[in-house]
Amino acid sequence: MSGSVSMEVCGALATVALSHPGKFNAMSRSMWADLRSVFERIQRDVSLRCVVVVGAGHFCAGGDISEYPAFRFHEESLRNFHEVDVWGGLQAMLDCDVPIVAQIDGNCIGAGVEIASCCDIRIASSAARFGAPIARLGFPMAPREAALVLRAVGELTAREMLLSAAVFDAAEMHRRGFLNQMVAAEILSSEVQAVVQRMVPLAPAAARLNKQTFRALGQVLPAQGASEFVANSYQFASSDEHREGVMAFVEKRQAQFKT
Amino acid sequence: MSGSVSMEVCGALATVALSHPGKFNAMSRSMWADLRSVFERIQRDVSLRCVVVVGAGHFCAGGDISEYPAFRFHEESLRNFHEVDVWGGLQAMLDCDVPIVAQIDGNCIGAGVEIASCCDIRIASSAARFGAPIARLGFPMAPREAALVLRAVGELTAREMLLSAAVFDAAEMHRRGFLNQMVAAEILSSEVQAVVQRMVPLAPAAARLNKQTFRALGQVLPAQGASEFVANSYQFASSDEHREGVMAFVEKRQAQFKT
Amino acid sequence: MSGSVSMEVCGALATVALSHPGKFNAMSRSMWADLRSVFERIQRDVSLRCVVVVGAGHFCAGGDISEYPAFRFHEESLRNFHEVDVWGGLQAMLDCDVPIVAQIDGNCIGAGVEIASCCDIRIASSAARFGAPIARLGFPMAPREAALVLRAVGELTAREMLLSAAVFDAAEMHRRGFLNQMVAAEILSSEVQAVVQRMVPLAPAAARLNKQTFRALGQVLPAQGASEFVANSYQFASSDEHREGVMAFVEKRQAQFKT
Repeated sequence: MSGSVSMEVCGALATVALSHPGKFNAMSRSMWADLRSVFERIQRDVSLRCVVVVGAGHFCAGGDISEYPAFRFHEESLRNFHEVDVWGGLQAMLDCDVPIVAQIDGNCIGAGVEIASCCDIRIASSAARFGAPIARLGFPMAPREAALVLRAVGELTAREMLLSAAVFDAAEMHRRGFLNQMVAAEILSSEVQAVVQRMVPLAPAAARLNKQTFRALGQVLPAQGASEFVANSYQFASSDEHREGVMAFVEKRQAQFKT
Repeated sequence: MSGSVSMEVCGALATVALSHPGKFNAMSRSMWADLRSVFERIQRDVSLRCVVVVGAGHFCAGGDISEYPAFRFHEESLRNFHEVDVWGGLQAMLDCDVPIVAQIDGNCIGAGVEIASCCDIRIASSAARFGAPIARLGFPMAPREAALVLRAVGELTAREMLLSAAVFDAAEMHRRGFLNQMVAAEILSSEVQAVVQRMVPLAPAAARLNKQTFRALGQVLPAQGASEFVANSYQFASSDEHREGVMAFVEKRQAQFKT
Repeated sequence: MSGSVSMEVCGALATVALSHPGKFNAMSRSMWADLRSVFERIQRDVSLRCVVVVGAGHFCAGGDISEYPAFRFHEESLRNFHEVDVWGGLQAMLDCDVPIVAQIDGNCIGAGVEIASCCDIRIASSAARFGAPIARLGFPMAPREAALVLRAVGELTAREMLLSAAVFDAAEMHRRGFLNQMVAAEILSSEVQAVVQRMVPLAPAAARLNKQTFRALGQVLPAQGASEFVANSYQFASSDEHREGVMAFVEKRQAQFKT
């Protein structure tokens, strides 16, 4: 009813489906919790050698904005949403030692870019679109999420996405180094399966050790002062700008941001 | 008389002009001081939502070398130039919470690359040229400036610029990920204005918070040992090589560097 | 008899040749020791201004796997191989203040990518091929080497190389930002010489200072906890997977990796 993240296992391959019909697979709070538990199960299953993350038609169009008025305008509940729900799901993906392939079609926006950024290999349809136009919604990206996205899309693209609400097509994101491959929509699924079939026979413990090394090399947030910075990052919750952006979207009108 | 950096405000947009007629807008010491004070004013003005940095005809051809013999050959005055004048201007740009767009035509060399590296979005004419061929002038890039440029152009390009005095055209710098867009010179200004008009209506406090997050994520210099490293970086001031490079340029002759 | 790394000096230019006839210049243990002593000599020679690293026909096809059964299956000797032999050679390259150009033709695999990653400028023939398909051999990349390669090829490509055993052609590696230039095989040598001839007249002390700055800016491994992480990175030495991968290669059969 408010979407789900489910897992299907076939041999050494787990397929994780983002599903929220009618909302282009936008992530609801319960889907973030699902995402976390799915990846915690994957991490405990030593028989798995590869994971594919996919959304039918669209990868993921962002967060489920219809839920936002209920919790975004209070600092504590906003912090809780980003640090517990969202980061809980993303951290479970980052902590997963099994190689993850993103199969990206249609909209890959906001939360979609964040989930794709936690994958090791990203293969997209030429029809996919990428961005994080939350500046239209009156709020900034949470620090851990910004660190994750910046690392994956590069600083130039992260700033353009967040400061100009730019949305890019797959060809541009391929050129900018976010995508390993771009293929026609009709062959996206078969191309992902071909890559997976090359990965599954490879040494599984070596893959897990390589992912542990990459994790050790890449601190998503600098240690020093990070926890204080993060803790203070949600004071905007009750601001007029934040409320105006979210409510204008919910009420299907143009937001007016005053200085 | 030795150039200027000026600001014009129109609504929520500030336009910062680098101007040094007859010198392709090369930065003099007084222009670095201007740059700092202009960006300190921008940072204090809560009504601003976007800044465009531009130079007429050329973005900026580098430093004003005619001033160099007066101060470069003594360690203390050289350190003072880089750490106070140059870095004072660049740090004010990096500390600015308002999104900055670089509008780049013609020469973008040395100081030009550094100033462009402090901008969030870089849009260039296809006629623009980029480099930092100071190896011809007998001196290395100062550490903070090297960290800034390396981060913006990437390590491969930074090494090629500094170690082989390579100069790249806009198409190559676009390909290498330094530029968000490359357009024909005739439409550079109108394209920048189109981007700015998309940015101005966006949530202004969210933009400032995003820039603060990016700043927290990106340390320009590693903390440990950095201050000692920087302090010891100007001992070459009185070297023959440094003097030969600068004086050959001033005397319009080929430099001869002995080992 | 088990290959060599030799150096020839011509004026201010040193040419370092990777040579292992019949093995596409794969690195034996003695070649790693050679590499280290060659670069230590280069670093002590103040008359040098440029180094070219080259392999005839092929840059370097990886490690000499025929040597592996003798030492890889015991943790202590495996750690010794990576931390002393391999890293000794690579660290000597990273510690070299003289600019280094990689001239890359044919196979540039595993150790080849690592050696190329220590060079400042990389020029490849369009026939060159790049990868690190050690997942077929049942082992992960050592942490320092992974940090080096990740930094040079980018995180997306490093993960694809290690987790899917992907091998890329030169055009793809150029597009992904690992190569400064890609040229036809017939003109590779002359193009490298043209670049070198532009570099040799440049200020030599400035080049050395720039390289010292780049070294100070780029920590290959994060300091905190790194030594413990590295020390514990070789416990897989005696695993069945590791043994199966290496022995299958040596015995010219397909490896079977059990979970």
